[in-house]
Amino acid sequence: MDEFALIDHLCQRVSAAEPHVVHGVGDDAAVLACETGEQLLVSTDAMVEGTHFLERTMGWADVGFKAVMSAVSDIAAMGGQPRHLVVALAVPGGRPLTALEQLYDGLAEACQQSGCALVGGDVVRTDGPLAVTVTVLGAVPAGQALLRSGARPGDTVFVTGYVGSAAAGLAYLLAGSPVPADVALRLMQAHRRPLAQVTAGQVLRAAGAHSCNDISDGLASELNELARASGVRLRVRAELVPVAPEVRDYARLCGLDPLEWAWYGGEDYQLVGTAPPLAFARALAQCAALGVRLTAIGRVVDGDGVVVELPDGRVDVLAARGYNHFAADR
Amino acid sequence: MDEFALIDHLCQRVSAAEPHVVHGVGDDAAVLACETGEQLLVSTDAMVEGTHFLERTMGWADVGFKAVMSAVSDIAAMGGQPRHLVVALAVPGGRPLTALEQLYDGLAEACQQSGCALVGGDVVRTDGPLAVTVTVLGAVPAGQALLRSGARPGDTVFVTGYVGSAAAGLAYLLAGSPVPADVALRLMQAHRRPLAQVTAGQVLRAAGAHSCNDISDGLASELNELARASGVRLRVRAELVPVAPEVRDYARLCGLDPLEWAWYGGEDYQLVGTAPPLAFARALAQCAALGVRLTAIGRVVDGDGVVVELPDGRVDVLAARGYNHFAADR
Repeated sequence: MDEFALIDHLCQRVSAAEPHVVHGVGDDAAVLACETGEQLLVSTDAMVEGTHFLERTMGWADVGFKAVMSAVSDIAAMGGQPRHLVVALAVPGGRPLTALEQLYDGLAEACQQSGCALVGGDVVRTDGPLAVTVTVLGAVPAGQALLRSGARPGDTVFVTGYVGSAAAGLAYLLAGSPVPADVALRLMQAHRRPLAQVTAGQVLRAAGAHSCNDISDGLASELNELARASGVRLRVRAELVPVAPEVRDYARLCGLDPLEWAWYGGEDYQLVGTAPPLAFARALAQCAALGVRLTAIGRVVDGDGVVVELPDGRVDVLAARGYNHFAADR
Repeated sequence: MDEFALIDHLCQRVSAAEPHVVHGVGDDAAVLACETGEQLLVSTDAMVEGTHFLERTMGWADVGFKAVMSAVSDIAAMGGQPRHLVVALAVPGGRPLTALEQLYDGLAEACQQSGCALVGGDVVRTDGPLAVTVTVLGAVPAGQALLRSGARPGDTVFVTGYVGSAAAGLAYLLAGSPVPADVALRLMQAHRRPLAQVTAGQVLRAAGAHSCNDISDGLASELNELARASGVRLRVRAELVPVAPEVRDYARLCGLDPLEWAWYGGEDYQLVGTAPPLAFARALAQCAALGVRLTAIGRVVDGDGVVVELPDGRVDVLAARGYNHFAADR
C-alpha cells in the first residue's frame, strides 16, 4: 500500500461528516464553512512513543484516542466546540498495518465522543519512534473565548471532575500492585482514555467564567499559569481538591499522598479556572444537571503565584513543577 | 529552559501579527476571526530528518523555511490565501538551541513571504530524529476553492514556474559535481528554498481555472491525481514541460534526461492544473504582468490516466511513480 492509499485506508475509519465540512480528506486542503458571529480556535499537540506513551502501558487505540482528547481539551479550555482535526503520523518501518488501523479506530472513537470530524492528514516514514500530531479546529462565539488571563480577585477557583487519576493510573500500570479488578480498570482508563471536558467548558463560558486552563501538566503547573497570565494570586485549599475514591485507595496502598498525583501528575484533561461566585453558582447548577462534577477549590486574591492551605493550617507556596519535557536538560 | 519557556522563546522569532489574529501564541488555543463570505482551508504536513531532509543537504533555517512552504503550497493549490499556522516540533536530546532558533528563523522567513502568522505550537522530546509538523490555515471565497476533481475535457493543462529544479538541486547536493558557482547556487536554492505559488494560485482561481494540485511528489504523480480525481485523461507534450536552463545544463553534465527530475522528482511546490482556454489566457496575461511563469503543457480529453507525447512522436502512458514513503515496504 503506498502513502496515498494508506492515508485513504486509515482515514476511512474516521467519520468525516460534520455540518461545516465542505470538502474533507482527499484534496490539497480541506474546505470548511465558518459561521457568522463565531471565532475560530486552533491548537496542535504532538505525542511521541517513549516520551508520552509506552507500548506496554497503552494500546494503539488508546494512543489515538488520547492524542485526540489531548488536542480537543485545548478547545474545551477556551469554552469552544471542537469541530475538525487533521492528523500527521510519523511511522517507523516494520510497524504492522493493524497497529495503525487500531490507532485510527481510537482517533475515530474520540472524534465521535467530542463531535469532531477528521478532515486531513499526512503519513510519513521515520527512523525514530511513532509520533502523532493532532491539530484541532473549533469555534466559539466571537469575543467569548475563555483565556488564562481573565482571573480577577474575588473569583472562585474551580476544577472539573477528579484530578490525579491519570497519574495514579500510570503509576498502577508501571508498578502493577495488586488491587481489585474494578479499581484497576478505573485507574487504567483514567490514564488511557481521558475525556476532554467539552460540555463543561461551554457551560462555564456561557455561565460567565473569567478564566480557564486544561490540566495537561498537573494542577500545580496549570494554577501557576492562570496566576501568572492574570497577574493575581490563587489561594487553594488542599482538602477541597477532588480526588477519586479509587485514587485515594490506591495511594493508601502505595503509602503515598494522592495530592502529589493531583498537583504534579497531569494528563487528566480536566478544566481548572476561575469565575465570579454568582457565575460559579450558575455553572454548578448546570453541571449538576448534566452529571458533570464541578468543585470550588479556592479563590483569587491580589498578589501573585499559588498558595495552598494545608489541612493542618499551614500555608505553602505551590510551585509549578509538573511534567516538562525540557526542564531536565536545558 | 523549560518546555513553555522554550516555546515562547522560539515563537518570538516569528511574527504573530496578521489582521485575523485575535489571540495568538500563549493560551490553550489561538483565537482567529473569520470573514463573512469566506471558507476556511486547512492542511497538515510533516517533515522528518532522514526521510525528508539530511543535515548535510539542508541548514536548519532551510528546514523551517521548507516545512512552511510545503504546507502553504497546499493552500496555494486551492487558490486560497494562507493566514495562520501552528508548528509541532519533536526534538531529540542534545540538539543545540541555536539549531532550533535557526529553524524558527526559517519558519519566520517563509511566513513573512507568504503572509502567514504563527499562532501556536508544541515542542516535545523524541528519542528519534527531529520532526516538524506544520498545519496551515487559509481562506478562500466561499465555493471557489480549486479542487483536483474539476478538470473537464477541452481544458488546457498548465504548470507554473519550472519543474524538476528541486530534484536536480538534491542530486547536485548529494553528488557535488563541479558546476559554475551561479548554477550551483540556483540548484541548491531550488531544493532548500522552494517558493509556494500563492499569488499564482489566486490568479488562476480568479481567472476561472477548473482544477489545481501542487507539485510535492513529482509532475507524473500530480497529473495522475488530477486525472483520477476528475475522471478524465490528461494529454501532455513532453517538450512543453518547463525546465530551467541550469537544470538542463546540469542534466547534460550528468548524462541524464532532465524530464526524469520533472516527472518523478517532486518538492518543486509549483502548481499544475487545468483551465478552459479562455480562462487560461486570462491567467496567462495576469501572470505575465506579475512576472510569474505559466506554461500550457497539454490538454484534457475524454478517458483516463496521463499520456505524454514524446518529441519523436511516440505516445507513452505516464505512470504515477513519484516519491512515496510507503511504496517500498507495504
